[in-house]
Amino acid sequence: MGKYVIDATEGRAKAATFETVHGTIHTPVFMNVGTVAAIKGAVSSVDLHSVGTQVELCNTYHLHVRPGDDVVYKMGGLRPFMCWDGPVLTDSGGFQVFSLGELRKIKEEGVYFHSHVDGRKIFMGPEESMQIQSHLASTIAMAFDECPSSRAERRYVEDSVKRTERWLVRSKAEMDRLNSLPETLNPDQMLFGINQGACFDDIRIDNADYISTLDLDGYALGGLAVGETHEEMYHILDVTVPHLPQNKPVYLMGVGTPANILEGIERGVDFFDCVYPSRNGRHGHVYTKHGKLNLLNAKFELDESPIEEGCGCPACQHFSRAYIRHLLKAKEMLGMRLCVLHNLYFYNRMVADARQAILNNNFSEYKKKMLEGFDNNM
Amino acid sequence: MGKYVIDATEGRAKAATFETVHGTIHTPVFMNVGTVAAIKGAVSSVDLHSVGTQVELCNTYHLHVRPGDDVVYKMGGLRPFMCWDGPVLTDSGGFQVFSLGELRKIKEEGVYFHSHVDGRKIFMGPEESMQIQSHLASTIAMAFDECPSSRAERRYVEDSVKRTERWLVRSKAEMDRLNSLPETLNPDQMLFGINQGACFDDIRIDNADYISTLDLDGYALGGLAVGETHEEMYHILDVTVPHLPQNKPVYLMGVGTPANILEGIERGVDFFDCVYPSRNGRHGHVYTKHGKLNLLNAKFELDESPIEEGCGCPACQHFSRAYIRHLLKAKEMLGMRLCVLHNLYFYNRMVADARQAILNNNFSEYKKKMLEGFDNNM
Repeated sequence: MGKYVIDATEGRAKAATFETVHGTIHTPVFMNVGTVAAIKGAVSSVDLHSVGTQVELCNTYHLHVRPGDDVVYKMGGLRPFMCWDGPVLTDSGGFQVFSLGELRKIKEEGVYFHSHVDGRKIFMGPEESMQIQSHLASTIAMAFDECPSSRAERRYVEDSVKRTERWLVRSKAEMDRLNSLPETLNPDQMLFGINQGACFDDIRIDNADYISTLDLDGYALGGLAVGETHEEMYHILDVTVPHLPQNKPVYLMGVGTPANILEGIERGVDFFDCVYPSRNGRHGHVYTKHGKLNLLNAKFELDESPIEEGCGCPACQHFSRAYIRHLLKAKEMLGMRLCVLHNLYFYNRMVADARQAILNNNFSEYKKKMLEGFDNNM
Repeated sequence: MGKYVIDATEGRAKAATFETVHGTIHTPVFMNVGTVAAIKGAVSSVDLHSVGTQVELCNTYHLHVRPGDDVVYKMGGLRPFMCWDGPVLTDSGGFQVFSLGELRKIKEEGVYFHSHVDGRKIFMGPEESMQIQSHLASTIAMAFDECPSSRAERRYVEDSVKRTERWLVRSKAEMDRLNSLPETLNPDQMLFGINQGACFDDIRIDNADYISTLDLDGYALGGLAVGETHEEMYHILDVTVPHLPQNKPVYLMGVGTPANILEGIERGVDFFDCVYPSRNGRHGHVYTKHGKLNLLNAKFELDESPIEEGCGCPACQHFSRAYIRHLLKAKEMLGMRLCVLHNLYFYNRMVADARQAILNNNFSEYKKKMLEGFDNNM
């Protein structure tokens, strides 16, 4: 079980320290997404040390399909496999399975679906998800949940959330069982529960109250940033986070833009993850305090400055906008790698600065200044 | 002009030191190919320090087309543009132009051809090639030559070599003129001449004798490893290298396999370059002292050992064959990057070891031992 200590608060914003068996996490924290045990854009776990990463996130469904969680287990778990010495969080596989749409069938026991790689039929329920995550030996496992659309009908969401609650109880029982097995790789594997309820305040709140009674290691908000407006998402955070335990970390899953993250921190969120920095980087879109730049733009052809003046990332230490633009135009992988490294550094640095601001009791000022600098796309 | 000092010889094999305005080169040396000012496989010039690179090679034709040598000139030349602090060699553009086949027309003044990027008509002769290379500001420029097929008819080769000789005189005059201009970025830019003659001993020898009378900074053998057998290539080296100046470096262009390189060193070659290590790396084919491995092979699925035991490359320092195989199967760019880094290290290390062996007067033993270890594909 992780030890969670709040170092400082400012309004509902928190700076905390979360001790795990794989290292200490200082929150707020942005987890860097390494879907199949690698950050897309030719970035290795070793490279992550140079961009200030604290936690790497990997996707259970993808790793179950390839190389197989049995392979990762035999290699000693994800951390030695991908050579990352810090904490790892694995999702439950649910989100990917539910995005398969017509390809899957939901039952009380779990979900039947077809692999996106070879089409073979797979079943995943709470027990299977925990078993796979136990094989992957992450620091933090996520409970198996359904993620209903933010536009789903009330009746559907009510039924779905009730089933997810039953799945949470099964997830916890199975994780407890797995952690006590002699052959488990990480007997201290933690489990976070997931709050759902689409955009219905009362369903979100009832669910938050219920899952808080289970003694989990942390609590996540799922099913956000999947179609609702930013304002709806902030509203759900406003009404739900106060109903989660104050002595446990809060994780807002799959969110989001730099502005989303600052708004989330203000509303008491500790953990974030998002594919934006790596996905945008691969398309030559890079983040700066003054807005997002498209490096493919002709105006950067002769621009000798780094992506962002004063940035300490491995790209900005050495290379100019003009050079990176040339690489992107020539479709050289190196261009993508440099943009991804910069973007991860930008996100990691932004939340580290937010933490420092909370410790200094000037987060509200920091957030205001950052948001003023961002362009509309941020 | 570079200062070339032979440190030791063993038979015709040489270990030499070549002083350039951009740093000292210890030969034999394998130059790492960064076609468009970047090593394919997401490897930057900064990364090259970790794989023992001495010289980076860039392709004049590709850079002329994109981003344009005028852009590179305005950015201060290739070295600051790609952030490489060591020596750079640029080819003349001739080889790429001549591989365009039906798309080009050869005249006394030079070659008319169409860009592979946008189809626009381009003319390149000796003067244009030197002007572009002067813009790129490489340490060593190559003379503009025609590279006839190793199977071309005698009459064609005779005419071609005579024209290449006239182009060499024009290349030298133009490089001298450019180096004396106040706006030149590298007034010490060196020029290597290129020996041609397909597989005709007498044409090769006559050409070598002639170009040796021009006071060039080094001498290359071109038109090899383009269709003839390895034995034919070694024979051409045997008969031609003794006719090149012994007080200048010798460069075997575009060669080759590890075995080819050891045979070249034995025959007095100083400089090599080849796309094999990066191209093979991108396909998951990696070099070891015991032969080439295809990491996609199922037998590596659970292989916890590095690509090569005891290897000091950035991939072998951290990652297993099993992990890299997984990345390659999942088409993660990181897999390609790690294989390319390993292969460049392997080549760079092999020639560095060959140099040390020559200094120790046991190159012949070193070569024998290495060749015994290689499988047929090496």
